[in-house]
Amino acid sequence: MTTTIQQDLEIQKEAIIQFLETKALEGFPSNLSDSTHHIMTLQGKRLRPIVVLMVAQGFGVSTDEAMPAAISIEVFHNFTLVHDDIMDKAPLRRGTVTVHEKYGVDKAIVTGDAMLPHSIGLLIKGNEDKAAVLIKSFLKMAQEVMEGQQYDMEFETQETVTVEEYMNMIRLKTSVLFGCACEIGAILGNASVEDQQKLYDFGLYSGLAFQIMDDYLDTFGDDTFGKRIGGDILLNKKTFLLINALKHADTEQKARMEELFEETDEEAKISGFQSLFREIGVAQIALDKMEELHDKSVDAVMSTSLSEENKRRLIEFGEIMLRRTT
Amino acid sequence: MTTTIQQDLEIQKEAIIQFLETKALEGFPSNLSDSTHHIMTLQGKRLRPIVVLMVAQGFGVSTDEAMPAAISIEVFHNFTLVHDDIMDKAPLRRGTVTVHEKYGVDKAIVTGDAMLPHSIGLLIKGNEDKAAVLIKSFLKMAQEVMEGQQYDMEFETQETVTVEEYMNMIRLKTSVLFGCACEIGAILGNASVEDQQKLYDFGLYSGLAFQIMDDYLDTFGDDTFGKRIGGDILLNKKTFLLINALKHADTEQKARMEELFEETDEEAKISGFQSLFREIGVAQIALDKMEELHDKSVDAVMSTSLSEENKRRLIEFGEIMLRRTT
Repeated sequence: MTTTIQQDLEIQKEAIIQFLETKALEGFPSNLSDSTHHIMTLQGKRLRPIVVLMVAQGFGVSTDEAMPAAISIEVFHNFTLVHDDIMDKAPLRRGTVTVHEKYGVDKAIVTGDAMLPHSIGLLIKGNEDKAAVLIKSFLKMAQEVMEGQQYDMEFETQETVTVEEYMNMIRLKTSVLFGCACEIGAILGNASVEDQQKLYDFGLYSGLAFQIMDDYLDTFGDDTFGKRIGGDILLNKKTFLLINALKHADTEQKARMEELFEETDEEAKISGFQSLFREIGVAQIALDKMEELHDKSVDAVMSTSLSEENKRRLIEFGEIMLRRTT
Repeated sequence: MTTTIQQDLEIQKEAIIQFLETKALEGFPSNLSDSTHHIMTLQGKRLRPIVVLMVAQGFGVSTDEAMPAAISIEVFHNFTLVHDDIMDKAPLRRGTVTVHEKYGVDKAIVTGDAMLPHSIGLLIKGNEDKAAVLIKSFLKMAQEVMEGQQYDMEFETQETVTVEEYMNMIRLKTSVLFGCACEIGAILGNASVEDQQKLYDFGLYSGLAFQIMDDYLDTFGDDTFGKRIGGDILLNKKTFLLINALKHADTEQKARMEELFEETDEEAKISGFQSLFREIGVAQIALDKMEELHDKSVDAVMSTSLSEENKRRLIEFGEIMLRRTT
């Protein structure tokens, strides 16, 4: 079974890459094509466009018909990466130089600014009859992503962040994009408003679990694939793990954390936090939270009118989103 | 007659400011409202939303009905100002601190990123039946503005810029927004495709003349309103005047210009270029070009099916755009 869905994802990904290389930037400003091509063709899992295709296919829409809208979601996602990398002053993304490092900050700003309207153009391409409803979903998502990005930046200097504030931030910054991707697939397939909402929920819960897994893997991940473990720890980043650790720590554990925030020996800092997180039980809290969110995502899919086969495919996709090790 | 159109514009502007203060940011991310409100409420002529209202009114659409789309154009314009000011490292805009100076570059980037989707939401508000056609016009414009911005930045380091390249840049960066504003007003009014195109042309030619006037006033403007004369000259900025001067100068005049580029005495530099521009005749070239563009804008309006009264109003509006002294 697993091989089937894995092979299926590879086929979808190939079709996505093919479209990105040929048609995705048609009509795009020629003097911004190089920088846009640079970010769009970095290696990636392409989870967001894949889930658009999968949901649309579940309602009988062909890959070709759904592709521009799927790529729309991917272009939007990559626009946010270009601007986020500027704000994070990140030199590299997936091992490759970032757009602002390669082309300068000014061009990176303008590149993102052109990618956003382009993504909306792709969304309605061939779907003019559904333009208003597709765009309504997309614009709500786009503004929520910006709201989430702003919260994320504010958290850096905010004294304390509650678990609820954190969950709201990742809902906005990361998860609504998965929700919107699924909703758009459903809209393309002329799904009922109820099914649109349930598939949005599937994407939203999967996206929340995905982000908590991201936080979890940064600390407890497998480094066989060369991913640096402990990046968030070294930055004292307010992740799901750290926020829960601060919430559940006793006085002595809090004191050790305060010391670790100032620790300059990187190895000691990382292993110190790993031990503390296990001791306080936040590794388990994270695993439990992901389980809870995964269950909700499954419930959402199961309550749709999709065929059993299509429900199974989406649930397996959600599991693959979680089961990754990098 | 002039009093009538002037009064008319003041009434439109009041209605625009009223909407900006009350409804324009409904549904906007709360944590980005302060920075967005800051740029949106700076003093300005509000020419772009006014022309949307005027064209729409010409086709029988009420101010209330056309207002969200008019504000959409203004929000988009202000988004470009927020990001342009970052790239220009401008501390002030219209005498007030810029968004990135007040709120930091990161928040200014995210603010603009949220304003762009918000502007599209305003565009289709109440116009869901026309969503696809409105958005098609808007997205084409948005991408062209980014293309123009990129050319403008490239011109700074480009050895030579031809008059044609310059005209293309200002067409993209400045004029298509006026064209789109007029086209959108016409779409709202269910104008024929021919009238939509002619009104787009009216906006485009008016916008081109407007930008050349901008260049002209920087060098030959009236400083009674406190506007600094010669800002472009001090930056060696490749304006319509400078590009034409370089094109038409003889060997001796070129040599004097090369010297003036290096001149450190600001007064000497400004008066030196003013004399040279007059001597070479580029002040007249600019005035002739504006006249030519203005004539084209009048021809475009006159060939529409608008009433004589509405044609006159638009032509007077175009003249007011040009007749300004600041």
